[in-house]
Amino acid sequence: MRILILGAGGMIGQKLAARLARDGWQGAPAEIVAHDMAYPPNPVPVTRQLTGSVTDPGLMAQLAADRPDIVFHLASIVSGEAETDFDKGWQVNMFPCWELLQALRAEHDKSGGAYRPRLVFTSSIAVFGAPFPEIFDDEFLTAPLTSYGAQKVICEQMINDFSRKGFVDGVSIRLPTICVRPGKPNKAASGFFSGIIREPLNGQEAILPVPDTVSHMHASPRSAVGFLLRAAELDTAELGARRALNMPGVACTVAEQIEALRDIAGNNVVALIKRQPDPLIERIVEGWPRRFLARRAEALGFKAETSFHEIVRTYIEEDLNR
Amino acid sequence: MRILILGAGGMIGQKLAARLARDGWQGAPAEIVAHDMAYPPNPVPVTRQLTGSVTDPGLMAQLAADRPDIVFHLASIVSGEAETDFDKGWQVNMFPCWELLQALRAEHDKSGGAYRPRLVFTSSIAVFGAPFPEIFDDEFLTAPLTSYGAQKVICEQMINDFSRKGFVDGVSIRLPTICVRPGKPNKAASGFFSGIIREPLNGQEAILPVPDTVSHMHASPRSAVGFLLRAAELDTAELGARRALNMPGVACTVAEQIEALRDIAGNNVVALIKRQPDPLIERIVEGWPRRFLARRAEALGFKAETSFHEIVRTYIEEDLNR
Repeated sequence: MRILILGAGGMIGQKLAARLARDGWQGAPAEIVAHDMAYPPNPVPVTRQLTGSVTDPGLMAQLAADRPDIVFHLASIVSGEAETDFDKGWQVNMFPCWELLQALRAEHDKSGGAYRPRLVFTSSIAVFGAPFPEIFDDEFLTAPLTSYGAQKVICEQMINDFSRKGFVDGVSIRLPTICVRPGKPNKAASGFFSGIIREPLNGQEAILPVPDTVSHMHASPRSAVGFLLRAAELDTAELGARRALNMPGVACTVAEQIEALRDIAGNNVVALIKRQPDPLIERIVEGWPRRFLARRAEALGFKAETSFHEIVRTYIEEDLNR
Repeated sequence: MRILILGAGGMIGQKLAARLARDGWQGAPAEIVAHDMAYPPNPVPVTRQLTGSVTDPGLMAQLAADRPDIVFHLASIVSGEAETDFDKGWQVNMFPCWELLQALRAEHDKSGGAYRPRLVFTSSIAVFGAPFPEIFDDEFLTAPLTSYGAQKVICEQMINDFSRKGFVDGVSIRLPTICVRPGKPNKAASGFFSGIIREPLNGQEAILPVPDTVSHMHASPRSAVGFLLRAAELDTAELGARRALNMPGVACTVAEQIEALRDIAGNNVVALIKRQPDPLIERIVEGWPRRFLARRAEALGFKAETSFHEIVRTYIEEDLNR
C-alpha cells in the first residue's frame, strides 16, 4: 500500500504518519511518502521524506507519478494567516489542490482508467459562516466568512467534481477545532482553544482572547487521525454525490473547557489563564458555528470524544511531557 | 459610466448591450466595452467591441486597466459542453473569473483603495443538486451535480471573498433557465425548454428529450437583463455576507409549457413537438431543482414573469420574426 501525505510535517500529519508507520494499513506494512515545507526535530521515520512547497511547479505530477493508493491532503496555511496574507492563502490552500487533482487525473488517464486513488482532504467547519441556526447538519449551506473557509469550500467542490467524473475517489472531512494541540501555538485563530489547556498544564500562562461564553466544537488530535483513517477506508458508494462530511466532536463553552481543566488539574493550573480580549480573533470566532450535527459521519463510523474531560485526558496521555 | 461586458456576444450579452446602448445608465450615456469570442451578424454598436477568449493571457489586466465602474461577467461555456469537455469547462468557467478578480484587485490596490467596481456574475441554479426538498430557498446548500454547477459555485465563493475583503463589490445572480431563447439551439442541456416553444412558433419541428412531467423554473431573456441591471445598481450593504442570490422565475412542468403554447398559438403549432428521449439530458435535468424560492431577490426588487404564457408572449413580442 502506497500512501502519500501532503502536510506530513504538521501536527496531525506527524500523528498520522506515526500511526501508519506503527500499524501499517489494514494489517499490512505501508509505504509512506511524506511531503511538507518543514518537519519537527526527530520526525516519524517514513519510506521517503520530501521537503518543499506544495506550490512548487511540477511537484504534483512528480508525486502522482508514483501512483499512491491513498493521498492525504492536509497541507494548508491556517485561518489566521490566510486572513492576513490574502495571496498566500489562495496560492497554498486552493491552487495546489487543483494541481494535485489534475496530476492524479493524468495518471488515471495514462492507466486507461484503472488508477483511481482515494483522496482524503482535510476541510474545516470554517466552510460554514454566520448567521447560524442554533444547530445544523451536513445539509447547511457553505457560506464562509474567511478566505480560509472559502478556499476549503472550493477544494471540496473540485474534489467532488473530479470524483463524480471517476478520476479520483475523494472524501472531504470537515474537521472541528482540533484540541488540545501539542507543541507551540500556531497562527490559527482557533489556537487559544488549545492554548488555555496546554499552557497551564505545562506550568505556563495562557491568553484567553474571547469571552467564557463562546461555544465551539472540539475533537482531539487522536480523533482527527481516526477520522482520516476512516475516510481512507470507507466505501464511498455510501456517500452518494455529496462527498464532504461534517466530523463529530464535543460542543462546549470556554467556561466548560476551563471547568474540565479544573476537575482534572486543579485551581492553581486554571489560575494560569489570563483574559486578554482580541477583537480580530473575537470577530473570526463569532463567524464560526457553535454546534452542529455530524449525523452522516456518525452513521459511517466516524468517532470522536464524548466529553471535554476526555479530550483533556487524551492530551495528558498522548502528549504531555513528551 | 464605464461598463465592461464579458460574454457580450451571447444572447443575453447582446440584449444587455442593446438596453444599455438605448437607455444609458441611470439616465446618462454609458461607455460600453464588449468582449467575446464571436458576435452575431449586426451586433449591437458599442463604444469598443473586442474579440478574443477570456482565457487569453493578460486579457483581464488589460480590461481592468480601464477601470470600468461596472463589470458584467457573463462569459461561460454552457452546462452540456462543460460536461463533455471537462478541461474546457474549468479553463473557461473558473480560471478567468479568478484572473478577473485579481486584475480588478490590482487596480484597487493601485488606486489606493478608491477603485472598487461593481461586479455582476451570472451564476446558475445548477449550483444546486438533488436530492431536493419539494421547495427550497437561498439557504439551501450548493451541491451541484455537474462540472458547470461546480464552476459556478467556485466563482461565487471567490467573488464573495474578494468582496468581503473590499477589493470588488460583487453580486452573483443565480439564473433560472432563460426561456424562450431566440436564435439557434446551443449546447446547453436546458436548450430544449426554449426549443419546444421557439421552433414550433417558427414553423419547425422541435425535439422534446424529457417526459412532460419534468418541472422547472424559467425567466425570459428580458427578465434576465432586468436582473443584471438590478444587480448592478442595488445597495450591496443590503446583501450582508452572502452575495449570491436566487433569481425569481416561473415554475411549471413541460406539459404546462406546452399548454401555454397551445393557448397562444394553437394545436398545429404544438403538433410540431416530437418526443425523442435523451438519457444524458434526462439525467442532467433530473439533478436540477424543480422549484425554489427567491425571497431575498424579490425583497431586493428583482422581478420575473408570473406565468409561462407571459414568457411565450415576451418571446413573440421581442424576438419572433426578427
